[in-house]
Amino acid sequence: MQKQIKLVKRPVGTPTYDNFEFVDTHIGEPDEGEVLIRTNYISVDPYLRGRMNDAKSYIPPFELNSVISSGVIGQVVESKSSKFQKNDIVTGPLGWQEYSVAKDSSIRKIDADLAPATAYLSVLGMTGLTAYFGLLDIGQPKDGETVVVSGAAGAVGSIVGQIAKIKGAYVVGIAGSDEKTAYLINELGFDAAINYKTQDVRTALSEACPKGIDVYFENVGGEIGDAILPLLNKFARIPVCGAISSYNNEEVDLGPRVQGYLIKTSSLMRGFTVGDYTQRFKEGSQALAGWLQDGKLQYEETITDGFDHTIDAFLDLFKGGNLGKAIVKVSDIE
Amino acid sequence: MQKQIKLVKRPVGTPTYDNFEFVDTHIGEPDEGEVLIRTNYISVDPYLRGRMNDAKSYIPPFELNSVISSGVIGQVVESKSSKFQKNDIVTGPLGWQEYSVAKDSSIRKIDADLAPATAYLSVLGMTGLTAYFGLLDIGQPKDGETVVVSGAAGAVGSIVGQIAKIKGAYVVGIAGSDEKTAYLINELGFDAAINYKTQDVRTALSEACPKGIDVYFENVGGEIGDAILPLLNKFARIPVCGAISSYNNEEVDLGPRVQGYLIKTSSLMRGFTVGDYTQRFKEGSQALAGWLQDGKLQYEETITDGFDHTIDAFLDLFKGGNLGKAIVKVSDIE
Repeated sequence: MQKQIKLVKRPVGTPTYDNFEFVDTHIGEPDEGEVLIRTNYISVDPYLRGRMNDAKSYIPPFELNSVISSGVIGQVVESKSSKFQKNDIVTGPLGWQEYSVAKDSSIRKIDADLAPATAYLSVLGMTGLTAYFGLLDIGQPKDGETVVVSGAAGAVGSIVGQIAKIKGAYVVGIAGSDEKTAYLINELGFDAAINYKTQDVRTALSEACPKGIDVYFENVGGEIGDAILPLLNKFARIPVCGAISSYNNEEVDLGPRVQGYLIKTSSLMRGFTVGDYTQRFKEGSQALAGWLQDGKLQYEETITDGFDHTIDAFLDLFKGGNLGKAIVKVSDIE
Repeated sequence: MQKQIKLVKRPVGTPTYDNFEFVDTHIGEPDEGEVLIRTNYISVDPYLRGRMNDAKSYIPPFELNSVISSGVIGQVVESKSSKFQKNDIVTGPLGWQEYSVAKDSSIRKIDADLAPATAYLSVLGMTGLTAYFGLLDIGQPKDGETVVVSGAAGAVGSIVGQIAKIKGAYVVGIAGSDEKTAYLINELGFDAAINYKTQDVRTALSEACPKGIDVYFENVGGEIGDAILPLLNKFARIPVCGAISSYNNEEVDLGPRVQGYLIKTSSLMRGFTVGDYTQRFKEGSQALAGWLQDGKLQYEETITDGFDHTIDAFLDLFKGGNLGKAIVKVSDIE
């Protein structure tokens, strides 16, 4: 028997424990072309909140009374595929459960010599690719430009800021604690950091960005996103990756309309998801792995121990509890 | 002596006659490299409202107690430039006055055989180029896609819709009277038109756009711009050209934040002004002139007769009084 986590009630506003249920169930058996995987690590991500609504979006919503899924690292226990052997370490979109049966086409092996396995859920996984393509394809920072990133100590934001530094930009991060802002400056090499919980963001941004803002990597939306608008330079670019401040809103999320700001500065805002770039994943993965090996990319993980605490780790995202990538450790890699 | 119009008080909210003053002044004399021009036609445009504020924007604000300027068609009365002769018909950014002295580098001759002179203030001028570059460079409509344009019976919108038809799109216009919607469908060949003053825009848009919206050419902002967001298709494009509904707002213009909509659909909004495309004006002018000669572009003008009525024509823009390009006729071309 194993445990799994199902979505049993769609959240209204902020998710609570009531929305989820731990269920005991049998461990499946692989058919031809499938493998049985023991879950080692589960990625918990803000975007999963969107999938808990019954609304059209870029990926279909989770079905009620079904197992939740996200990025997972696991180890092959039994293989009925010629592509995988027992003990291979793999990653793919798998269920929140202790064991998964997966088609061999839905997973891929990871190179645990290059980096620790969990890196494939963060800097070398979807998180790193999200930062890479959003910043470089949409944001296109140039040497000496000012790049601001919100959610800067989070999984995506921390990679965005470091890539922007690699590209020669002046980088300002916005985060929610003094511990986080210190981390951004001292560990990641950001040029400035703003604690939005203790500072007035508009004033602090004006001071931190004396030359205006050329790129704003949007992770949070809300009033922080609003505060950027008056500081945009001509031809500024805003990759819109997330809006975590509004994911749990029950009412319409109102703010200043953006049209006037975009016209005055000929600026662009563009929403994206990493799935828009599947054709270019190889390019992104290689670049990220290269920077990682060269010591140019640091990454932080907040690892919650034990499958039983998966929901805790997920709910913590909306309180800003994580530094870097939020991951749940389910079992050891053997 | 001649009359000219000065901005004497910056408007707060909707402009009124109080903001302007008609002043009698001497007619200037051209120096070497200059010409004296008799004003025939003055272009009155919504964007001029922005220049009446004392705020940083893409063009500097008008100075208080200075003559207002915009696109003008005029005839050379006296030339001290080798580039122009008496009676040449020229266009350029000139003052709201009966006569102007202009440097020869600031004006250009127009070809009155190709089209009536006023066309150089509309379809063959900045208006047409605004429609051309905003729609084709940012909007990039493809055959069979759905293009929605607001301010559709206005100077820019009416050209946008027709270019979109030339490109094979399904075109829906939003305008403010039944006369205008009838014009869009019967004269300009739009596929559907919505009267935002009598119809519920959200419902009408859903009905008019059964396949969703691929391109929204934004001229008006406000609640009409808001109504578009839930209907955006994957990878939709929103050229943001104007937001006339908010130009006279005294308070912050609040609406639903756009981030969530942009992320869900990987859509882009991009502000622009025609000045961003100066390097490509020749391409745009040639394309527009070609379509005009082929009978593929219709254009309408609302011509107000008499310099004394210039302010009336300008204020009328904010009441939706104009069909097509708003122009003031100051004197006959001789």
